[in-house]
Amino acid sequence: MDNQVISFPGANCPIPLTHKDQIVMGHGSGGKMTHALIQDIFLQAFKNPSPNPGDDGAVISLPERLMPFQRLVLSTDSHVVSPLFFPGGDIGRLAVCGTVNDVSMMGAIPLFMTAGFILEEGLEISKLQQIANSMQTAAEEAGIQIIAGDTKVVQRGKADGLYINTTGFGVRNYPNEIGGAFARLGDKIILSGFIGDHGIAVLSARGELGFAADVASDVAPLNHLVGSMLAASQEIHVLRDPTRGGLATTLNEIAQQSGVRITINETSIPVHPSVQSACEILGFDPIYVANEGKLIAFVSPADTDNILTAMHSDILGKDAVVIGEVEEKASSRVLLRTSIGTHRVIGILSGEMLPRIC
Amino acid sequence: MDNQVISFPGANCPIPLTHKDQIVMGHGSGGKMTHALIQDIFLQAFKNPSPNPGDDGAVISLPERLMPFQRLVLSTDSHVVSPLFFPGGDIGRLAVCGTVNDVSMMGAIPLFMTAGFILEEGLEISKLQQIANSMQTAAEEAGIQIIAGDTKVVQRGKADGLYINTTGFGVRNYPNEIGGAFARLGDKIILSGFIGDHGIAVLSARGELGFAADVASDVAPLNHLVGSMLAASQEIHVLRDPTRGGLATTLNEIAQQSGVRITINETSIPVHPSVQSACEILGFDPIYVANEGKLIAFVSPADTDNILTAMHSDILGKDAVVIGEVEEKASSRVLLRTSIGTHRVIGILSGEMLPRIC
Repeated sequence: MDNQVISFPGANCPIPLTHKDQIVMGHGSGGKMTHALIQDIFLQAFKNPSPNPGDDGAVISLPERLMPFQRLVLSTDSHVVSPLFFPGGDIGRLAVCGTVNDVSMMGAIPLFMTAGFILEEGLEISKLQQIANSMQTAAEEAGIQIIAGDTKVVQRGKADGLYINTTGFGVRNYPNEIGGAFARLGDKIILSGFIGDHGIAVLSARGELGFAADVASDVAPLNHLVGSMLAASQEIHVLRDPTRGGLATTLNEIAQQSGVRITINETSIPVHPSVQSACEILGFDPIYVANEGKLIAFVSPADTDNILTAMHSDILGKDAVVIGEVEEKASSRVLLRTSIGTHRVIGILSGEMLPRIC
Repeated sequence: MDNQVISFPGANCPIPLTHKDQIVMGHGSGGKMTHALIQDIFLQAFKNPSPNPGDDGAVISLPERLMPFQRLVLSTDSHVVSPLFFPGGDIGRLAVCGTVNDVSMMGAIPLFMTAGFILEEGLEISKLQQIANSMQTAAEEAGIQIIAGDTKVVQRGKADGLYINTTGFGVRNYPNEIGGAFARLGDKIILSGFIGDHGIAVLSARGELGFAADVASDVAPLNHLVGSMLAASQEIHVLRDPTRGGLATTLNEIAQQSGVRITINETSIPVHPSVQSACEILGFDPIYVANEGKLIAFVSPADTDNILTAMHSDILGKDAVVIGEVEEKASSRVLLRTSIGTHRVIGILSGEMLPRIC
């Protein structure tokens, strides 16, 4: 990776940033003000050493040892969370972690990321700075580089502060397939920790709870945790992060993709008391609330203990537990075994419960 | 490329699209309505055969012959053009061509693309369909595949119809460096055709001209043209598409990056009469007006004729001409030799002349 080039068209002209307080339309012009904005904000924040940052694309020389038998993984995600800042994170951290996690859930090592910004006229520069810094912090945590970017500005009232698109690129060298379609009969289902924190933290930041919830978002990059898991077992069949729609929706997607019936135990699912009580007041079920630092894994029974041991040694997997299993082929349902021993079908989220959660 | 996977999280559940007229908030939920939207609109339009479209990322197996000595190129771009439809194109065609062109300008062959959509509540589904189809048409023209996508929905008034981010991925196997920093003393500057069409077409579609201009956008994928040029010469030093800020801004960027003085001849620059007269009425200079299907190349004098011949055989390069040359090192200016023989410095665009042109 000696040759990567950060690409931010228009980044090479040394022009001072003149409008430091607010985004104005000129910041999207492609001219002087765009140059200044990119240099003072994004190149500073991303700190990617580059001989030619102003080109249209990013050139990557992968180390030769990474190339043979590797597969390349690309994943893209737009981020429109409201508000931009919430307990435990902000839209920048969310954008980086979301894409790192999507690439990781493919069983790949994320290496590079691009970032496209749509900025609303009137956005405070200090907020943008804070968000760019937050992206870089998250990228460093993940060990990923932000190598290409783009900025556009739209008029006041045509966005909500800013939106960020991130696209991640990684390589995969796992001997078996990993994906929602590869769940097998008998697989154990591991959940990496407590659910619902992100959704409740964002709602709390909106002031929509009507009370103060002591909940921080779990937003975090899961690639190191996934790396430990992949090293511990060659029998990981599905990895997925239960973001929008929560645990219930993600499990339904997997049940559909693999054509299996899944049963999970309500009492096994870790939920913080503060999240549980917020959900009770709001009439939400935590299994439908978004997470941004959790994963679920479908693994062979024989390797379950090895994988759990590997997870427990990572701060992001220390609360990992088995929450259920794959019980039957060809029914594509998710059943919840309740605390009193009854079973109920849990469906996929219909409509919008929590808009703009990510 | 036998193993690529189109990735559109939530694409695997066969659910009919119920709200066919307008985007509603539920389309961004990650739940049923999102699934339906993706299946009925994007997967239909992009036509990418895939065993597992619902995963979080796209896995790419490059053909082995493409791997040795290749460099990988990633480029990202957000598109916020207003209006969404204009003579000669729409935001979808623009998004695909913009990214194909950015990757091509790095001297690379674009292979794959991701697309992230931010949709405004209230957007008509038929428009979205039309735009998705238009993207696929452009992708086919370019011979590129859209392999990963994402959708988000924001409330009415929080976007302007829709925004699209595209990220392109390509490989480069050119023996020499290509980029804005590699202009050399004596280089000839080639422009591929008539300038200003895109900007004037978009203004015309906005009804801001006050008269009807018979101008269509030039938006087109330039990768085949670039391929012919790279095959014709190993002495292409700079490739760049003069989009936002126009020819003048792009030349200034290159002058800065390479530390050279550039002189161009006003009389050599092709401008359609309809664009010229629209510019005169509006007080614009066509050299600052955006293009979306044009390129400029800095090439060695010895290879100029070869390269022009190659360009003239492509429909998108048939009007290619030499417009100037690199005259002096270490001055970083662009001079225009006017029709009456005087010289004037042409600067970089300051502020915003035409907001949301791409």
